[in-house]
Amino acid sequence: MTDSPAFRPEPRTPRGFQDRRARDLRVEREILAQVSAVYEQYGFEALDTSAFEYADALGKFLPDSDRPNEGVFALQDDDEQWMALRYDLTAPLARFAAQHWETLPKPFRRYAYGPVWRNEKPGPGRFREFIQCDADTVGSARPEADAEIVALAVAGLEAAGLPRGTAVLKLNNRKLLNGLLSAAGVADDHQKLAVLRAVDKLDRLGADGVRLLLGEGRKDESGAFTKGAGLNARGIEAVLAFVAAGGGSRTDVLARIADVIGGSAEGDEGLADLSRIDVALKGLGVAEDQAVFDPSIVRGLEYYTGAVFEAELLLDTVDEKGERLRFGSIGGGGRYDDLVARFTGERTPATGFSFGVSRLAAALRAAGREPGHQARGPVVIIAFSEADMAHYFEVAGELRGAGIAAEVYLGSSGMKAQMKYADRRMSPAAVMLGGDEIAAGTVTVKDLDLGRALAAKVTDNQTWRGERPGQATIRRAELVAFVRRIIEG
Amino acid sequence: MTDSPAFRPEPRTPRGFQDRRARDLRVEREILAQVSAVYEQYGFEALDTSAFEYADALGKFLPDSDRPNEGVFALQDDDEQWMALRYDLTAPLARFAAQHWETLPKPFRRYAYGPVWRNEKPGPGRFREFIQCDADTVGSARPEADAEIVALAVAGLEAAGLPRGTAVLKLNNRKLLNGLLSAAGVADDHQKLAVLRAVDKLDRLGADGVRLLLGEGRKDESGAFTKGAGLNARGIEAVLAFVAAGGGSRTDVLARIADVIGGSAEGDEGLADLSRIDVALKGLGVAEDQAVFDPSIVRGLEYYTGAVFEAELLLDTVDEKGERLRFGSIGGGGRYDDLVARFTGERTPATGFSFGVSRLAAALRAAGREPGHQARGPVVIIAFSEADMAHYFEVAGELRGAGIAAEVYLGSSGMKAQMKYADRRMSPAAVMLGGDEIAAGTVTVKDLDLGRALAAKVTDNQTWRGERPGQATIRRAELVAFVRRIIEG
Repeated sequence: MTDSPAFRPEPRTPRGFQDRRARDLRVEREILAQVSAVYEQYGFEALDTSAFEYADALGKFLPDSDRPNEGVFALQDDDEQWMALRYDLTAPLARFAAQHWETLPKPFRRYAYGPVWRNEKPGPGRFREFIQCDADTVGSARPEADAEIVALAVAGLEAAGLPRGTAVLKLNNRKLLNGLLSAAGVADDHQKLAVLRAVDKLDRLGADGVRLLLGEGRKDESGAFTKGAGLNARGIEAVLAFVAAGGGSRTDVLARIADVIGGSAEGDEGLADLSRIDVALKGLGVAEDQAVFDPSIVRGLEYYTGAVFEAELLLDTVDEKGERLRFGSIGGGGRYDDLVARFTGERTPATGFSFGVSRLAAALRAAGREPGHQARGPVVIIAFSEADMAHYFEVAGELRGAGIAAEVYLGSSGMKAQMKYADRRMSPAAVMLGGDEIAAGTVTVKDLDLGRALAAKVTDNQTWRGERPGQATIRRAELVAFVRRIIEG
Repeated sequence: MTDSPAFRPEPRTPRGFQDRRARDLRVEREILAQVSAVYEQYGFEALDTSAFEYADALGKFLPDSDRPNEGVFALQDDDEQWMALRYDLTAPLARFAAQHWETLPKPFRRYAYGPVWRNEKPGPGRFREFIQCDADTVGSARPEADAEIVALAVAGLEAAGLPRGTAVLKLNNRKLLNGLLSAAGVADDHQKLAVLRAVDKLDRLGADGVRLLLGEGRKDESGAFTKGAGLNARGIEAVLAFVAAGGGSRTDVLARIADVIGGSAEGDEGLADLSRIDVALKGLGVAEDQAVFDPSIVRGLEYYTGAVFEAELLLDTVDEKGERLRFGSIGGGGRYDDLVARFTGERTPATGFSFGVSRLAAALRAAGREPGHQARGPVVIIAFSEADMAHYFEVAGELRGAGIAAEVYLGSSGMKAQMKYADRRMSPAAVMLGGDEIAAGTVTVKDLDLGRALAAKVTDNQTWRGERPGQATIRRAELVAFVRRIIEG
């Protein structure tokens, strides 16, 4: 029953693929377990989509490429439809969200991890299959949703083994540069993209190299010429002044950006977004050295429409020979408001953060560190007023700090929809902070577990009528203990 | 930068694929976490092979099929080589073992979990992508390696939420039926396979249906005719007597089998194997109701060469409408001694157990139950004497019961190779039970951690010479505490 003895295949992994042994797997799984716990604590739910997607669902947003359906592993099914293995976890999320939008809790907060496949040329340390870990919020246009993603990324990296001071989240907003370019008379999308790509090389080429790429073009060491974005001298200097506006506190950077973006509507919007992110981050307790504004961060992917994030490793790292190794970016993301619209035709705001698990593992190893939190719906903090968001985030941070999953509602609906949302999430409790409560130093907590238990127990309903069962206004200092009693039921 | 507004793909999962939400994922991950912990405790190390294999590496051992490379998702790489997504975790293990055989600790004990893909017709509850979880030992021809797999499967299912009395492992040995058929004059492999397939339908068709399939053939309700195996009347009755030999203790079944298999060399070998498995299981503390011998278990896959296992759910299960549902098999496996030989030309004995994670999750859900241990090399119990294997397994069981990973060495090499094995596994300790120790109620423990620390510390070597550092003979009752002190070191 064996194959013909004449034929003996050579045992080998396919080109660009690898096997992983226990030592590597232990670190990767520990990272995923710790990060998942943090992500669930932040109110993000797990999702696992299929490895295959129909090729049309993946669309043309391939990584760093305009070529439709290149760079993926594709095959034709029996019914002649083209399927392709996912190349990231964002395109499948957009498909899933579009497919189930009606029945999803909105905003939909999910995290996911698993292999992705890229049909690209392999190289040293560059594989055609690798594990990604993503968290995204779909359905919230609020900059606070971006701030949440940033805070989650900070906490996730910390749980993965990168405490404060060892990594930093850098933020920017595409609207700023877009606004600056509009103010400078650049309207063409291709030219804007060429500017983004030039700025993306700042790290590698320095200001002088980028200046050439923003203008006529640049000849590299090998003599190869890269055509530039074709900006005029004033445009070039405006872009360079903008990307150099980083450094210091988030407030400092905002002030410097305001001076250089030149007052377009889109630029002002970007500035206002960043300012709200800063407020939310302060509420969440994300320190100035954990998340900074950096106008030089652009991210290569053209689908980002607003905030962009990049996580950078600050540790000294050495390779296996003990030589210094520069790791740089260990994760990134941003706001992409057009991906779901591909399916539905309706713009659906979304924002997320992604990191490569093996890459993070390699970074931790290179830095001489290797890594060692609850699961159900999060407590939902009801959002009543734009002006009080920082208070809501403070409460969320407080609950999370105590190991309790919590989130501020980030959709744009009223009280009733928010309670329905909390119910769909199977939240144990909803937390309400109106103006009176904030002034009085109190908080109102609704026990949703008790509410569900009573709803199920129809015969006893009479007893409770008029008593507003399970809702109590308590002192702020008692919140954690009160919520914990509800959860431990 | 969006696609043409004219084209809007329909958001949908590809045919036969599914998305999994948090509720399902939580159960599946809990199963995997608990089972992984048990598997590691049993001394199996994690391995993750690539999703793709070269098509030639997958060979023709497709599930229930003789058709080479059908049933898989295959595509041609840029260099024109055919690659296919793995359809199980066994074929990739065979490839990996063949590829790295020289440097692997032998026997190589690994567990793995992850998605597998089958290009088959989907149906209700039948998907083209699903998660499998496997544990295998490659490089041990000992029946005790099969017993270990059985004990591991029992413990794994218990950790996954199926305690004693809720599931049973059924064992058989292909050699018995092969021997019986040889004794009855059946030599042709195709005829043997037809017999296996007939017996495999016992559950569904009963003895009368199987009798027809063993003989000339059977017409089903629809009038369709299935050609039979063509045994004569005496052969048919011999097979039926064999498959009916189950029931009662393992010892009872062995006695009944001995009466009916008719004394061929292969049959006697199968009987001897089962007898040794029984002894090992007793040593491991696997009770008679946890693992039974059942001659009616054959398993469909033709690649099994000896022991075959099937895990059966004993709980009453109901579907979502509350109607009774028969789950039956929730996992299985067996011994396959020819898979690695496809690559190397050398027969490499292997045995393993596999279960579908989603299927087990569905079984637990249908039964109204849903699920709630250390990582490094296992303590290795050195195997000195064939006759004392039960004692070694008792020690392994005792250590595991105390939460300490432990295993009995199951290769066929001497003391030196076993110590090298323990060292390669990074075992904290090796446990030795010679005849004298067993008689005296003592045990000798070698502290391998200390050994490694000393080997690294060359300058201090002098001090230790002649003291046999880190080796001590202690009372059996002190073993767990002693090993724990080493591990907590």
